[in-house]
Amino acid sequence: MVNEFELRLSKVRMAMTEARLDAVLVGSTVNLFYLAGGVCRGYMYIPVDREPVFFVIPPAEPAGEFSARIRKPEQIPDLIAEKGYDIPARVGLEFDDLYYSEIERLRKVFASSEIADGSRVMRRARLVKTPYEVDRMREDGLRHCAVYSRIDSCYREGMTDLEFQIEIEHVLRMEGCLGFLRVAGSRMEINMGSLLAGPNADVPSPYDFSMGGAGVDPSLPVGASGIIMKPGMSVMVDMNGGFNGYQTDMTRCWTVGEAGEKALRAHECSREILRDLESFARPGVETGELYRRAARIAEEAGLSSYFMGHSNKVAFIGHGVGIELNEAPVLMGRDRTLLEENMTLAIEPKFVIPEVGALGVENTYVVTDGGLENLTPFNENLAAL
Amino acid sequence: MVNEFELRLSKVRMAMTEARLDAVLVGSTVNLFYLAGGVCRGYMYIPVDREPVFFVIPPAEPAGEFSARIRKPEQIPDLIAEKGYDIPARVGLEFDDLYYSEIERLRKVFASSEIADGSRVMRRARLVKTPYEVDRMREDGLRHCAVYSRIDSCYREGMTDLEFQIEIEHVLRMEGCLGFLRVAGSRMEINMGSLLAGPNADVPSPYDFSMGGAGVDPSLPVGASGIIMKPGMSVMVDMNGGFNGYQTDMTRCWTVGEAGEKALRAHECSREILRDLESFARPGVETGELYRRAARIAEEAGLSSYFMGHSNKVAFIGHGVGIELNEAPVLMGRDRTLLEENMTLAIEPKFVIPEVGALGVENTYVVTDGGLENLTPFNENLAAL
Repeated sequence: MVNEFELRLSKVRMAMTEARLDAVLVGSTVNLFYLAGGVCRGYMYIPVDREPVFFVIPPAEPAGEFSARIRKPEQIPDLIAEKGYDIPARVGLEFDDLYYSEIERLRKVFASSEIADGSRVMRRARLVKTPYEVDRMREDGLRHCAVYSRIDSCYREGMTDLEFQIEIEHVLRMEGCLGFLRVAGSRMEINMGSLLAGPNADVPSPYDFSMGGAGVDPSLPVGASGIIMKPGMSVMVDMNGGFNGYQTDMTRCWTVGEAGEKALRAHECSREILRDLESFARPGVETGELYRRAARIAEEAGLSSYFMGHSNKVAFIGHGVGIELNEAPVLMGRDRTLLEENMTLAIEPKFVIPEVGALGVENTYVVTDGGLENLTPFNENLAAL
Repeated sequence: MVNEFELRLSKVRMAMTEARLDAVLVGSTVNLFYLAGGVCRGYMYIPVDREPVFFVIPPAEPAGEFSARIRKPEQIPDLIAEKGYDIPARVGLEFDDLYYSEIERLRKVFASSEIADGSRVMRRARLVKTPYEVDRMREDGLRHCAVYSRIDSCYREGMTDLEFQIEIEHVLRMEGCLGFLRVAGSRMEINMGSLLAGPNADVPSPYDFSMGGAGVDPSLPVGASGIIMKPGMSVMVDMNGGFNGYQTDMTRCWTVGEAGEKALRAHECSREILRDLESFARPGVETGELYRRAARIAEEAGLSSYFMGHSNKVAFIGHGVGIELNEAPVLMGRDRTLLEENMTLAIEPKFVIPEVGALGVENTYVVTDGGLENLTPFNENLAAL
């Protein structure tokens, strides 16, 4: 793992150089997990041209020369000076990953330094996965698929959407899913994923997910609403993979009874979009073009009014995924990110037909020289439950 | 519910007056839920002496004269001015509930105002629950107890701690637990609660929970570790209640086979502490005194070295609870908060005996004139599984 962390560090440093930072101080759970390989308490101080120092807060124990125990971040400047390091002229702090009060406290720790956004640097470093990370996601995807192969057997006639979801959650947990879903930003709250049946798919939610749903309580207005699944409804299962610190994102749909013609057409259109993007997307392609191609295919199929929502539409067809469910880039029309090898993307062209429900497929992919490799290879048919 | 929200508003305004704020702008999920009765997207602007204005972001719809649709917070000052409101001289923003980047954006929206901490104001307002909130927590507690009455039946000999936890999670979800556990701060990540068996209870965790546990993956190092539960071990179940937007916090312990003498003594000491505090705690009592009494009782029983952890101790015996699992106050020795009627407290005097496991009881209480009312009334005996 030594080389793995050297590799990650070199990616962080490259992003620091682009952002003209002399150092970053990383303290968020997610970025410390990335840099240290495990969730821990403390701060990782990374100068652009010197060895990083890991300041650990008990109960963690320091290990090695470049690790020191602290009780509070105010001790950091003296300890940096003891190492012979200069106080950085410009230091990155995690503006999008730490609460205001914590950044204000750290700003005082570096009172003589200019502070700049370190979240962007970490996001840039994490945008392209290392081969080790891709392997973790490949493993996660296979375990995710193994759970999806048991979804049929979770269904019983007359169930509510929520009961169906709970049975799938149970299988996920028994197969090793950690349950806790790490998401970025403050507008995402969910329990292990989303299951949408029938007209509930067309109920908007205040959260930033691609699909909505009423939920069963105003304190968590998203996903399954407790309705009984009935013939004529589609059932969209977008439940969490997350077995090893990395996540894959995957959606499949079923119907109760036979699928109607429109449902089938929407579902097949989603698959057509995925096939198109799988061969089109490769290093150098602009992400915005993925969105535009998808929207064009939906339009040509006469399905624009259902594309990415009906009464409430979202303006993206996918997103980066990795340690967090929602990472950079966001696959929306105006995004200018250029794809690179080993970016990992969840692509989810979905349709909401109000009287039927949600249709479509979501896979998690890794960008390779030859196109997209599917990390969630599982039957995409719209099968009857 | 109109009077309920008037009541909450009056509590916020009282806290604003104490903090000398002319207005607060509330945008966090948890505080909007408190003020609006449901999770929604937008900002609630509360002047200290005028009607609040709710700025909603689609898909939410404005309702009534004091509600307006916005696309972004930069529209707020003009809309405030249109209402004939002054721009506030001193405005509270949620320093502990919003990320740095969002506060910096809002700071520019109120470029001519002094900004101050609005999180503290909201925490102060929410510290004492309304009678309606206490009723929601009372309901939550009863549903929580109903699940605990089925925990025995989840156990099968030879199970791992994690398998046991997963069966309890399943019962929780089937009984209506929402699953997603709302916690405050950035150092808490967990899936529906914690179950600790045997020596795993003495493994420290980097998170801010009262107890540790190794977890099953370095990406989530807390709680059940996958060990098989064996005779001589205690099993501590601290699984989430959370059925209606409010939470109760509750812990019970079991043993595999017969309890040893030391385990039984520790468990009974926890109950003795609770009985003592139930009659001692009442409006006007300092919370720090609750901690000190508990520590004294543990010391008199010769159990200090196991009290609130063994290899890693925490310095509190409980915390406020409500919409979030961990609210103010923190019941630690140096806390000077004075108890008030309708504060809700989770009190959790726990012991970790390294070779045996964790022991003790946690209840959620509401402070009344006559002492503490237990919202989680359920058999506290240390029973054999």
